[in-house]
Amino acid sequence: MSLATAPLLDRAPCSVPAAIALANLAPTAVQGVVDCTLSLRHAGRRTLRLRYEWLGDPALPVLLVAGGISAGRHVAASEALPQPGWWQGQAGDGLALDPVRHGVLAIDWLGADGTLDAPIDPADQADAIAQVLDALGIAALDAFVGCSYGAMVGLQFAARHPSRLRRLVAISGTHRAHPYSSALRALQRRAVALGALQCDERDGLALARQLAILSYRTPEEFAQRFGPAQVIGNGVRVGAEDYLDHCGAKYSAHASPTAFLRLSESIDLQALAPESIAVPVTVVAVAEDRLVPIDDAYDLVERLARGRRGRRQPQLRVLRSAYGHDAFLKEHAAIDAVLREALA
Amino acid sequence: MSLATAPLLDRAPCSVPAAIALANLAPTAVQGVVDCTLSLRHAGRRTLRLRYEWLGDPALPVLLVAGGISAGRHVAASEALPQPGWWQGQAGDGLALDPVRHGVLAIDWLGADGTLDAPIDPADQADAIAQVLDALGIAALDAFVGCSYGAMVGLQFAARHPSRLRRLVAISGTHRAHPYSSALRALQRRAVALGALQCDERDGLALARQLAILSYRTPEEFAQRFGPAQVIGNGVRVGAEDYLDHCGAKYSAHASPTAFLRLSESIDLQALAPESIAVPVTVVAVAEDRLVPIDDAYDLVERLARGRRGRRQPQLRVLRSAYGHDAFLKEHAAIDAVLREALA
Repeated sequence: MSLATAPLLDRAPCSVPAAIALANLAPTAVQGVVDCTLSLRHAGRRTLRLRYEWLGDPALPVLLVAGGISAGRHVAASEALPQPGWWQGQAGDGLALDPVRHGVLAIDWLGADGTLDAPIDPADQADAIAQVLDALGIAALDAFVGCSYGAMVGLQFAARHPSRLRRLVAISGTHRAHPYSSALRALQRRAVALGALQCDERDGLALARQLAILSYRTPEEFAQRFGPAQVIGNGVRVGAEDYLDHCGAKYSAHASPTAFLRLSESIDLQALAPESIAVPVTVVAVAEDRLVPIDDAYDLVERLARGRRGRRQPQLRVLRSAYGHDAFLKEHAAIDAVLREALA
Repeated sequence: MSLATAPLLDRAPCSVPAAIALANLAPTAVQGVVDCTLSLRHAGRRTLRLRYEWLGDPALPVLLVAGGISAGRHVAASEALPQPGWWQGQAGDGLALDPVRHGVLAIDWLGADGTLDAPIDPADQADAIAQVLDALGIAALDAFVGCSYGAMVGLQFAARHPSRLRRLVAISGTHRAHPYSSALRALQRRAVALGALQCDERDGLALARQLAILSYRTPEEFAQRFGPAQVIGNGVRVGAEDYLDHCGAKYSAHASPTAFLRLSESIDLQALAPESIAVPVTVVAVAEDRLVPIDDAYDLVERLARGRRGRRQPQLRVLRSAYGHDAFLKEHAAIDAVLREALA
């Protein structure tokens, strides 16, 4: 295993939005890579490059923060890396994930660069994170905070590396992929395959993303936001179609089809016995989530409790949000409150 | 307008299933066509051929029965046309829709044969049905029983041709297309368009159908029915994938892409003020329906009531079913009960 750090990688000072005042940014952030050999559960031994970012003073207790399959290592802006991160609303000065009190560590998922064209298990991601911790000399995490796919990987990490974790916060992700949600993802992958029969894979990838967006959001939001369909020329255009065009184009312009396919599959491979988890867990679920039904969160909590034998029982927090599965990206105040409580 | 009848069209005696005993079948059924000129709401005047089937004695009071966009004029088996119909569980000897007591009339939707490549409004379908009634000498229907798209058309018929209708039963379809459901249908149409870029449109049509199936069913059903994903070779196959393959292949083998696109669009064009409806209406909704949210059924009933000024108030029946939107095709006993009550 080799370790290389590359601070200030991807620096793009011009992209600082007005909302992120440089005076309040954590001064320190380091991006780096770890080359390591992993025994993948379904694809044998592979030598792979893992990419991480470590925000805040390395002497502080470390939080591992992980998001959905489209999220990566850049969680929040810093003076060193000032572009906004994917969880900008939760990590930063005065927020629940405050780089003054914690180091915030995150990785790019195995497979995110599109070079690993094999089935990737969420357990593989957990093992990859353990290797990054080895490389960085971090004996144990103060907490693993995972959302969506990141929550699935967090549960795997808790089951496989319990000595390296004080507590887990699992938001909108559980111990299994629901069969209905898996079916919807399988059809998204078919859209990519259908597009791949042309010379340009972008159309298929855009359609897959648009389908995913529908599963992330809710009818309640769409009813408030979009009007009725209209006849335009010889066809019909529905109210949400401009929005969906935007989502598809934005995603397909930069995403790797292989990365999408393999990480989408990886969600469907989630399979874990919650009874085997010994570390304290806070489960956060959203009542309106159409992708991770709240019944699966109830089941997770019940089965975590069964494995605890009188130790600290799992905590459940249920949020209400018209953003459904995407609530972790949109409901900043509610997520801040549950994070503060879980990390207190 | 010209009228031609063609009894015994499409006769296929070999396909009679054991469950349909010939002794109990209504002896009479006639299929025919009506050539007429319609002023389409978004596509001007067109001369079109309408196809109907009339089951039972023509002297009996007539029920117009209409299903989803894939359903057609053949509702149930008869001695004359013994192949099973799309609503075989509800129409027949001893059932709520009994050809001994009612004539059962149904049409193939405008656009179902793929020859009308223009936006089709649900109001156009209602006007087409009125023309069929003219041709057959039916002054008024005893009831219009519509499911899904058929319920949308039924509401249009009640608003546009009130003197020709005694009562309406609207099952799992309302006065508007929900913006979220419209978005999902727009993406199904994009799947067809993506497939059309190849030489063979079947793959795109199959994907569109598979996406539609997910919206017709529920996570509850899939959780009971399908197991977890598996790694097979270098890929992942989810539990529902065999079933979805079957659904896609069966549909795309015979469906017309143009018919699918135009009837799918037509659902999204549904827009009607329920306050304008004067005939008695029974609204039937399914709590688990993901395509027609039950809140839209509540809204329909409230707005129907506002237009009634002391006359008979609309009736609401709410069913519970893990089949969701498809409950009208699967919950035979519950649908039989609501039909008996509504038609008493």
